[in-house]
Amino acid sequence: MSFLSTLNARWAATGSLLCVGLDPDPDKFPSALRNDVGSIARFCIDIVDATAEFVCAFKPQIAYFAAVGAEKQLEELCQHIRANHPTIPLILDAKRGDIGDTAALYAREAFDRYGAHAVTVSPYLGTDSIEPFLAHAGKGVFVLCRTSNVGSGEFQSQVSNGMPLYQHVATRAATDWATKGEVGLVVGATYPEELKLVREIVGDMTLLVPGVGAQGGDPHAVVTHGSNSVGRGLIVNSSRAILYASDTDYASGAHDAARATAASLV
Amino acid sequence: MSFLSTLNARWAATGSLLCVGLDPDPDKFPSALRNDVGSIARFCIDIVDATAEFVCAFKPQIAYFAAVGAEKQLEELCQHIRANHPTIPLILDAKRGDIGDTAALYAREAFDRYGAHAVTVSPYLGTDSIEPFLAHAGKGVFVLCRTSNVGSGEFQSQVSNGMPLYQHVATRAATDWATKGEVGLVVGATYPEELKLVREIVGDMTLLVPGVGAQGGDPHAVVTHGSNSVGRGLIVNSSRAILYASDTDYASGAHDAARATAASLV
Repeated sequence: MSFLSTLNARWAATGSLLCVGLDPDPDKFPSALRNDVGSIARFCIDIVDATAEFVCAFKPQIAYFAAVGAEKQLEELCQHIRANHPTIPLILDAKRGDIGDTAALYAREAFDRYGAHAVTVSPYLGTDSIEPFLAHAGKGVFVLCRTSNVGSGEFQSQVSNGMPLYQHVATRAATDWATKGEVGLVVGATYPEELKLVREIVGDMTLLVPGVGAQGGDPHAVVTHGSNSVGRGLIVNSSRAILYASDTDYASGAHDAARATAASLV
Repeated sequence: MSFLSTLNARWAATGSLLCVGLDPDPDKFPSALRNDVGSIARFCIDIVDATAEFVCAFKPQIAYFAAVGAEKQLEELCQHIRANHPTIPLILDAKRGDIGDTAALYAREAFDRYGAHAVTVSPYLGTDSIEPFLAHAGKGVFVLCRTSNVGSGEFQSQVSNGMPLYQHVATRAATDWATKGEVGLVVGATYPEELKLVREIVGDMTLLVPGVGAQGGDPHAVVTHGSNSVGRGLIVNSSRAILYASDTDYASGAHDAARATAASLV
């Protein structure tokens, strides 16, 4: 099944728009595991199993693994998700962006090595930097559009031909990239008005929305402004607020936090 | 010594503007090693030792290692360069771009794990995505400005306030990022006129210039349009044309190709 087929089936089965972001920071681990780099996979797998029933996707952030040389643990985590939760799409958050040959290698890293169903990429280098990802039929490619950080507007909001850069990216996604593969966009929850503008440009395209939870985005505003014509089209990510919800029983804490966050996305 | 001190000393000692890009593709390896993923480090180390006398920097491209799970070989290669060629700056080509906490982890990957002296990053997310790299005092941070690929102008050339996006990036680098750390820019050799415009914006800042060699950039045009007020300020990268210069004796072929390329950069 393709990424979008899997995602649509998952939305239909659960009604949930929640994605749990797997950003394992050993400094923030519960006391029993604190600062134990070797326990990254175990921690993430426990979170996955505890929250699976409430999610439409999981999203490991590769930087947390790469910084500490834990690629094998990322492989183990991805393998666990695919084997034990085969109906849940796996999005690798990598924000890669490079020219043709090199982009093709990053696509291989995400889709072949880690077996991800989708990956995040950067648009700065243009269409030929994105095509090598889109060339993997049935895989999802989420292009950064409007990010959730404070400085995101610096370049993304620069207006040319009457439209800010992020809307040019959205337009290109809707008119060109969407004809070449299963493209989606990353739009931060912290700018709900701009989420609405992107939705108007891209029709029913899937939007990956980080920034709910610890980053302060309002879940209700995201759904109101961002959902598509059938009330879906959103993958809303929360990481820290779920991963570190409880120090005493992190799996149970994550379970409860995921249930509450999923319920708030209406 | 800081990245810029090391680079200045290297330029002074060799007069070379050449950077050898380490893009190890086992499909292109000489017959004896072809398709042997386990020989990536050995191949790169042989290239490094054969070309060191002609270069001002080495630049491993991390995608070639990540695609095949060869991070340990990248660690070995970086360790070899630092130990055996300590006067040669090591630039990790990673083009990372993410928000604060995650960017800090990518900085840790480049500078702590691989011991690189500099790294390449993407500007799409703005200043707060670059600051975590600049916060590593004495490390170099090369921000993508105008890249060498066919589609690079799609967003990079969009004009706002009378100036294309890549010049806004250059302006921000010269006026803000340069006050926070050792920033440089990536400007492709395939657009020498734009290289000249960037040089006019950034003064004597170091420019990393890919696209000479297999990508077709003209070495003389790069130096004419890109060098700074003291005839330096350029790190001109060539990868494939040097790595795969000879099938029978790849080290000797790379040695000769590096000498010729360095000599052409005048």
